[in-house]
Amino acid sequence: MDGNSLGSLPKITTKRLKQVLQKEWGEGMIGSWSNAGWFDSPIKVGDKIAPLIGAKKGEVIVADTTSVNIYKALCAAISLQKGRKIMLSEAGNFPTDLYMMQGIEAFSDGQLEAKVVEPDAILDNLNEDVAVLLLTQVHYKTAAIKDMKTITKKAHEKGVLVVWDLSHSVGSIEVELSKCKVDFAVGCGYKFLNGGPGAPAFIYVAKRHQKRALPILAGWMGHQDPFAFTDAYTPSPDIARFRCGTPGILGMAALECGVDLFAQTTIGDLRKKAMQLSRLFIELMAQECREYGFELASPNEDTKRAGHVAFRHIEGHGIYQAIKKEGIISDFRTPDILRFGITPMYLRFQDIYKVVQLIKQVMETKAWDRAEYKIRAAIT
Amino acid sequence: MDGNSLGSLPKITTKRLKQVLQKEWGEGMIGSWSNAGWFDSPIKVGDKIAPLIGAKKGEVIVADTTSVNIYKALCAAISLQKGRKIMLSEAGNFPTDLYMMQGIEAFSDGQLEAKVVEPDAILDNLNEDVAVLLLTQVHYKTAAIKDMKTITKKAHEKGVLVVWDLSHSVGSIEVELSKCKVDFAVGCGYKFLNGGPGAPAFIYVAKRHQKRALPILAGWMGHQDPFAFTDAYTPSPDIARFRCGTPGILGMAALECGVDLFAQTTIGDLRKKAMQLSRLFIELMAQECREYGFELASPNEDTKRAGHVAFRHIEGHGIYQAIKKEGIISDFRTPDILRFGITPMYLRFQDIYKVVQLIKQVMETKAWDRAEYKIRAAIT
Repeated sequence: MDGNSLGSLPKITTKRLKQVLQKEWGEGMIGSWSNAGWFDSPIKVGDKIAPLIGAKKGEVIVADTTSVNIYKALCAAISLQKGRKIMLSEAGNFPTDLYMMQGIEAFSDGQLEAKVVEPDAILDNLNEDVAVLLLTQVHYKTAAIKDMKTITKKAHEKGVLVVWDLSHSVGSIEVELSKCKVDFAVGCGYKFLNGGPGAPAFIYVAKRHQKRALPILAGWMGHQDPFAFTDAYTPSPDIARFRCGTPGILGMAALECGVDLFAQTTIGDLRKKAMQLSRLFIELMAQECREYGFELASPNEDTKRAGHVAFRHIEGHGIYQAIKKEGIISDFRTPDILRFGITPMYLRFQDIYKVVQLIKQVMETKAWDRAEYKIRAAIT
Repeated sequence: MDGNSLGSLPKITTKRLKQVLQKEWGEGMIGSWSNAGWFDSPIKVGDKIAPLIGAKKGEVIVADTTSVNIYKALCAAISLQKGRKIMLSEAGNFPTDLYMMQGIEAFSDGQLEAKVVEPDAILDNLNEDVAVLLLTQVHYKTAAIKDMKTITKKAHEKGVLVVWDLSHSVGSIEVELSKCKVDFAVGCGYKFLNGGPGAPAFIYVAKRHQKRALPILAGWMGHQDPFAFTDAYTPSPDIARFRCGTPGILGMAALECGVDLFAQTTIGDLRKKAMQLSRLFIELMAQECREYGFELASPNEDTKRAGHVAFRHIEGHGIYQAIKKEGIISDFRTPDILRFGITPMYLRFQDIYKVVQLIKQVMETKAWDRAEYKIRAAIT
């Protein structure tokens, strides 16, 4: 129940990694940068991710971590927005999004400001001083889905560029970057894409911005001709300027295995099953565990909730530990959030039933009270 | 003959990766972040690299790519040098080093300047306007070794901080970061450390700077308490502030396998054999191929030349292709450099003999003239 945090290991991945290690690295050696397609893999895998997020070929590249890509996207947006000094985001966004903005502010010598406002104040804070708005489409605690189209449109009306963090969206819900006219986006490879622990992340840059948006991380792999080895940096004219250093091939190969699974289904079908699984989970919890004080922390409306279901409980940490002891892995998010990943690619309806029965048993027997290490949420 | 570009696959690596995939990811799932030590692996592997470069425990962390670490080190140095605006480096340095400086300049709105001077003008350009000097210890074309101790001392005399790029040093020559009082360093995992294609890189920050040097890439993994999920960034007080996003575990595990091999030997012993191999190569080339117009591009003196040997030849690209056809992989660097990696951990004296015989045969038969794709160096 944690595939929204670390997706499961696909059967094909071990086999593919053995091939990368023994054939490509062991035998092909340095030649595999061209012969096995290593050099172009960030573009190739990016092009495979593109249809999952409503982007076009040549708009997505796999590189670095999500955090680093947030940084690249923010700086690229800022490079297009001379005279505007604010980076805007919302309180309670995933921490790394806010931290990357704060890092930029700290180094800007007063030229840039990281502004964090309450979620309901975002639209009121869009104005001519704002260079870029950074939001996460699906909230990491509640799974609430933001209205990407409306928010992007309202930002554009004020001349604000938008960076969407798709970490909890990609591979889980339908995303329409082109249709929503999104400027920049980033996303994570190790959650619903099943790319493995610390899988490389990706960055999306709309075609219309690619020639003008500057890559702050001006690395040799983003040069228009890396192997000319010149002293002066000339960025590639396309998405390749947003690669920086040498891509990690083992992580890239594992990510590709995960992404390839999506060719066997559609995001629409996955989303449909995920909604049914989540609905069942919420209703079974209401039916079986009503008396135990769980509060649904996710939106109740199916279309407003993405790929996980969160409940609040004052003894959340003890419950998390007690069900883990019985083999069900969920996530605990301080102070009182129990988060259950809904991954329709491999989760069955009977799994939902079993989990609810286990939670019921834990509550009935007060097993949560015997947890080894327990935090009681200080709820005021 | 290319282990300075991509080190060979250690026997243990395939076995270890299978374990990481099946046991740690497949069975242990998200729990492996603590149970299998994934979370602490950047520090653990960093501590294993430290003795190879004369650094102390807690001064090295594995993260990101070399290019990104150059960026982090430059910005960290700049954060300590208010009022100084120049980043200094030398012409002909590895491109990504120069490019990263240029990227910083482009975004600084005139506050910072990337200054690239001729190698022999570095010392004369050290002055009170220079914030940071960025140099590569071993030149990627010639293998010439810079005098780290003297240069660092002269920089410090002018209040300049120094970033050393160890990409062609680590695992190849003895490096003494502490003894040389080096401020920052970065290095590459996929060359002499045998960490695999695009292995993660590392950054060294001297203990004395760790509390004050700011991490420009202020990511959640560098927060002093990542799982508190607070909105405000407070950097870890130690080397951990220089991690940013989630580490790629597959690449990390492969790198650790490569680094672990060094526990079976010493850099001193490796260096001694490497000097003997290189000496033999240079002397055999002089003896067997004297008439064919090769010019040694590396220093002739053993102690001034690191882990590869480079020759200039006007038909370098054709020769590179012709010997590759016979199974000997070297490197070609435009316009006329043939580069041979000397990796004492697995290269034998008889291999050197065979390579020279092959080069001789290629020259005798003019096989280089039949290369499929040939660039003739335009030497003026």
